[in-house]
Amino acid sequence: MSDIYFPSKVFEQAVHEIGKLPGIGKKTAVRLAMHILKQNSTYAHQLGEAIITLRDTIQYCKTCHTMSDNELCEICANPLRDDSVICIVEQIQDVLAIENTGQYRGLYHVLGGVISPVNGVGIHDLTIDLLLTRVANSKISEIIFALPVTIEGDTTSFYIYKKLQEYSIQVSALSRGVSVGNELEYTDEATLARSIRDRIAYTGIQK
Amino acid sequence: MSDIYFPSKVFEQAVHEIGKLPGIGKKTAVRLAMHILKQNSTYAHQLGEAIITLRDTIQYCKTCHTMSDNELCEICANPLRDDSVICIVEQIQDVLAIENTGQYRGLYHVLGGVISPVNGVGIHDLTIDLLLTRVANSKISEIIFALPVTIEGDTTSFYIYKKLQEYSIQVSALSRGVSVGNELEYTDEATLARSIRDRIAYTGIQK
Repeated sequence: MSDIYFPSKVFEQAVHEIGKLPGIGKKTAVRLAMHILKQNSTYAHQLGEAIITLRDTIQYCKTCHTMSDNELCEICANPLRDDSVICIVEQIQDVLAIENTGQYRGLYHVLGGVISPVNGVGIHDLTIDLLLTRVANSKISEIIFALPVTIEGDTTSFYIYKKLQEYSIQVSALSRGVSVGNELEYTDEATLARSIRDRIAYTGIQK
Repeated sequence: MSDIYFPSKVFEQAVHEIGKLPGIGKKTAVRLAMHILKQNSTYAHQLGEAIITLRDTIQYCKTCHTMSDNELCEICANPLRDDSVICIVEQIQDVLAIENTGQYRGLYHVLGGVISPVNGVGIHDLTIDLLLTRVANSKISEIIFALPVTIEGDTTSFYIYKKLQEYSIQVSALSRGVSVGNELEYTDEATLARSIRDRIAYTGIQK
């Protein structure tokens, strides 16, 4: 498919850029580019500008590190949220997933990954130090681990759990309603809602 | 999914625009937007600008109506192509599909659709008149129908076939190597190549 014929360099360039997106093959890229061509010019401008604006203007909350339009995200800035509970997640998509259950009223902390020596991800590549500073400087009553159920996720939970020992904080983890090996992002809302409601005490080893 | 939570309006806007693309659901749109966020800024600019440039600068060949960077497309402008043969296709994707077989050295004519009273597509919504003018003004020895094998496609072929009766032009159609009901765009190159090589005389009724 690399030698696919294009009657227009402009079209070829668009297909090339669209085809860099994950899960979008060359044929799909051609189809999407044709679709864009068939719409009126406004759509191409709205789409193109939304993509550029997204990348150029997005910020990350200085407290919890989820995406935000401001220095402090909507969740951290909301006085109705329970600021004594922090749910620790791997990535921003997990915040979206949990928010969509409507079951959780606490705050979050996005680690930006999990400890993974194989992939070269160490403790200092994540926001763990910032989490510990946050815990030290505010009254936190509970930490909920919502990290992936993998060796890396468990290692990360356990590392943070050990670091939290000096505080009298209740530590829990999502109940195993979430299928082992599944990513939070793709868990159905009902299962995820239940696993938040039924969260269990964290003792380092999860059965 | 319409009430999905987004911590950023900028992100929500990007997901909204990406989600308008065919075959891209909301979850996929979120995934693509997250991917764009994770790349460096250059990629978002290249992608966004390629989309806008595509829609704003693309032209359609004044002769064959395929997409082009110039008034006349690369194929029509190429003196090595056989300008006595015209292959009639429904849409631009079909030109790409046939070009990729490497079996065809003639020119094209993109109708922009097929006659379909149900969908409100009449003869004058297509480039049929321009095709007939083109035939009247140049020495065409053969017309190849490569329209979809549907009632609408057959109707369109037959209508043009009747209009061509006044000229001594050989009229052929792609051999039925193409599965009935399949679109050219998704036909594998070997089958499509064979159906061009084995094209058959067109007599109004295809068995």
